[in-house]
Amino acid sequence: MNYKMIGKILSPLLLIEVAFMVPALALCLYDGSRAAARGFIIAMIATVVVSGILHLLTKNAPAGFYAREGLVLTGLTWIVMSILGCLPFCISGEIPSFIDALFEMVSGFTTTGSSILPEVESLSRGILYWRSFSHWVGGMGVLVFLMAIVPLSGKNEGFTLHILRAESPGPSVGKLVPRMKNTARILYWLYVALTVLDFLFLMLGGMPWFEALCHAFGTAGTGGFGVKNDSFGSYSPYLVNVTTVFMLLFGVNFSCYYLLLLKRFRDVFSDEELRTYIGIVVGSTVLITLGIKGLYPTLGEAIRHAAFQVGSIISTTGYGTTNTDLWPPFVKALMLFLMICGASAGSTGGGMKVARIILAMKALRRNIHENLHPSEVSRVRFNKAPVDERVIKNLNGYLVAYFTIIILSVIVVSLDGFSVETNISAVLATFNNIGPGFDAVGATSNFGAYGTLSKLVFIADMLAGRLEIFPILILASRSTWTRR
Amino acid sequence: MNYKMIGKILSPLLLIEVAFMVPALALCLYDGSRAAARGFIIAMIATVVVSGILHLLTKNAPAGFYAREGLVLTGLTWIVMSILGCLPFCISGEIPSFIDALFEMVSGFTTTGSSILPEVESLSRGILYWRSFSHWVGGMGVLVFLMAIVPLSGKNEGFTLHILRAESPGPSVGKLVPRMKNTARILYWLYVALTVLDFLFLMLGGMPWFEALCHAFGTAGTGGFGVKNDSFGSYSPYLVNVTTVFMLLFGVNFSCYYLLLLKRFRDVFSDEELRTYIGIVVGSTVLITLGIKGLYPTLGEAIRHAAFQVGSIISTTGYGTTNTDLWPPFVKALMLFLMICGASAGSTGGGMKVARIILAMKALRRNIHENLHPSEVSRVRFNKAPVDERVIKNLNGYLVAYFTIIILSVIVVSLDGFSVETNISAVLATFNNIGPGFDAVGATSNFGAYGTLSKLVFIADMLAGRLEIFPILILASRSTWTRR
Repeated sequence: MNYKMIGKILSPLLLIEVAFMVPALALCLYDGSRAAARGFIIAMIATVVVSGILHLLTKNAPAGFYAREGLVLTGLTWIVMSILGCLPFCISGEIPSFIDALFEMVSGFTTTGSSILPEVESLSRGILYWRSFSHWVGGMGVLVFLMAIVPLSGKNEGFTLHILRAESPGPSVGKLVPRMKNTARILYWLYVALTVLDFLFLMLGGMPWFEALCHAFGTAGTGGFGVKNDSFGSYSPYLVNVTTVFMLLFGVNFSCYYLLLLKRFRDVFSDEELRTYIGIVVGSTVLITLGIKGLYPTLGEAIRHAAFQVGSIISTTGYGTTNTDLWPPFVKALMLFLMICGASAGSTGGGMKVARIILAMKALRRNIHENLHPSEVSRVRFNKAPVDERVIKNLNGYLVAYFTIIILSVIVVSLDGFSVETNISAVLATFNNIGPGFDAVGATSNFGAYGTLSKLVFIADMLAGRLEIFPILILASRSTWTRR
Repeated sequence: MNYKMIGKILSPLLLIEVAFMVPALALCLYDGSRAAARGFIIAMIATVVVSGILHLLTKNAPAGFYAREGLVLTGLTWIVMSILGCLPFCISGEIPSFIDALFEMVSGFTTTGSSILPEVESLSRGILYWRSFSHWVGGMGVLVFLMAIVPLSGKNEGFTLHILRAESPGPSVGKLVPRMKNTARILYWLYVALTVLDFLFLMLGGMPWFEALCHAFGTAGTGGFGVKNDSFGSYSPYLVNVTTVFMLLFGVNFSCYYLLLLKRFRDVFSDEELRTYIGIVVGSTVLITLGIKGLYPTLGEAIRHAAFQVGSIISTTGYGTTNTDLWPPFVKALMLFLMICGASAGSTGGGMKVARIILAMKALRRNIHENLHPSEVSRVRFNKAPVDERVIKNLNGYLVAYFTIIILSVIVVSLDGFSVETNISAVLATFNNIGPGFDAVGATSNFGAYGTLSKLVFIADMLAGRLEIFPILILASRSTWTRR
């Protein structure tokens, strides 16, 4: 393992984190939130010091950066950034417990949006900004950001590919353009443009600029931290609908937008994942509307709530407009399915990803076919192109790890004595980076009542979910840390 | 598809079912249960008629019997036998609704043990015998029974292998001896011997012969239908402990017993699946005892209840000694895990099977290794022997189908409005052939309150679970029924 190389890349990343804290600090100073300002200043100093030490320790890093280093770097980056990034929360006293602050920060960076806070309206604006902005950073990934802005030489093409693979959501990464660095840049420009668009639409609906900014960050990263205790419960139908649309848009594979810009409309509309994603969204909105229409005065209101929830869950954002805990069991079962399903590969959303579900179904169909006709050999095709068998192998590994992590997590967090429904939905909500679950972690409640052990499990689940399991599994596996 | 050949084998199988009904009819006549006797007589006549028609229609069956025919035959056999076998229930009026009677019969043959009956003590002994005996038939499989008794020529070796594969639990079938027919015979002799042993031990503990017989059938097949409303709740500690031991014994791969008979002790004790199975049993008994010790007067009683439940769930039997619905959430989460885990491959138990879990973990470890070291190629090994890649492929197909069926089933049965906990545990309990779940389908309750659609889903789940998914999936797939 090339530890020095890993440290060498981690060092500038931490400086980027410091830069990201500047607007939050400015807000604190402008508002006169002295405790929060002190929190940010100390956190920034600590981060600069860690970055400096890493820089000094890794001066003569040898060359050589492979898949293993890429995965370890990705896992470590997210953990170190979360530990340093949560310092303002606890130093300011707004989230006094370190483990709670870490939970909140990991929930932010992983774009989960689960919270341990019983209410958020008493927080200072600097802290609220930092919570929401962490979603925006986490949505596209900070390593991808580094690649987009730092001038790396052509020799590092393999390096950038390994990182983009480890940090990007989905079963495989397609290059949009021949050079990965340019791919990362295009992705970030699309991301910025869509975020600005969301912000403007929210402003047009009369939302105050600070709220619009935080919600645009939370929507773009498909995070879900808000600035109101009732999330979107008291916003106008216009603002609710705008957010529904943007949550769904951020759950689409960004390469579709790039293809749209290139006017390759046919490629976009024949995309199997996009068609399935739209089908699931429309189908479940209809079914949920039917399930809840008796609970709301008009059909229009039922559709609005249903569409918002579907967008919020399938994109793994986690905003809410109403107390979904009162919805009937059939609707809850559909919502649990949407939680597992998740958004598209190459979007900012979490979950298993629609592309993986399509691939898993196709692999199953092939498996049945091969059992019926043992002599025939066939390949799985996706968007008409044959799929590399390694992608199928990784998919299977992912699925085994996915369900194993869910089962083990549910067993451990059950020690705290909450209901089976609470525990299962809490694990699904954190591991799939959604946010709220049902019952004791439902729309009107939070994760604060769980014990420390459970919070650590949720933190690990959020990280494993955001990084698609492997970087975190590899950090936890013994063979990674033993010399051979 | 060679329909005629399938019908030709189905015909004598139905005559075996008629023969199986004789003792039940005799009991009815002895007890003077006239309605039940009439039910069995009509059912036997109907079964003979169907068998005769099949015999006439399939006189000139062409040769050729492949994997596809084996899977379709297996699926069809279980469905036809259940439909004809449930006739005594509804004709006697003891289970008036046909769908309820079918549910009960499928639950019997698939060794699930879920019931729609609020109480069983008012049923006639003939009906009780038939319920319990169906577990015994289903445990080892009626097709395996046919192979064991019918003189098939050596040319049919491929045929028997295809059926043993389709009907036997586990990721792969090992031949104990070179000829499959002899393997089937050895398995059935072991099965009979262990059942008789269980019966004698229960008799020694003072259980009346009829109850001992029914419970021996239910334990041997890992079914779970009992003859008392409180299952094992009012039996002596001796009878509870004997049943715990035998449930666990029937959850062991039967080839281990064959190896014991051959005095190959080292092979048995180094068996990876057996060691893991014992480890899971001991570990979860300890954890559950810790979780429930406050609920019972003595530690001994807590251990007895914990061990019985662990044996009952991991072997997928489903007997109960106490109201487990009152146990804490952590214990329930462990029990849900045991439900999924299931017994050993090659036993009469259901669930995913310990061997599959071991293989899945090993495949995951290899997948991680291959991602870290892309140039290295390695093979998964089980009991020191390399595993055929086709077994791994089928395992992955199984896992995808397994979780897909669970998710879809939970969504559909949620339409009936029960709690999330009820629905998830009901699907896991039927699909893994266990029996009772939690909450509204818990130890003190039953499946009778679900609607017809849900009952059909449970029936399909029980069949898919017992036959390990593929035969039922293939019956439901369009390409099986279209000519090519």
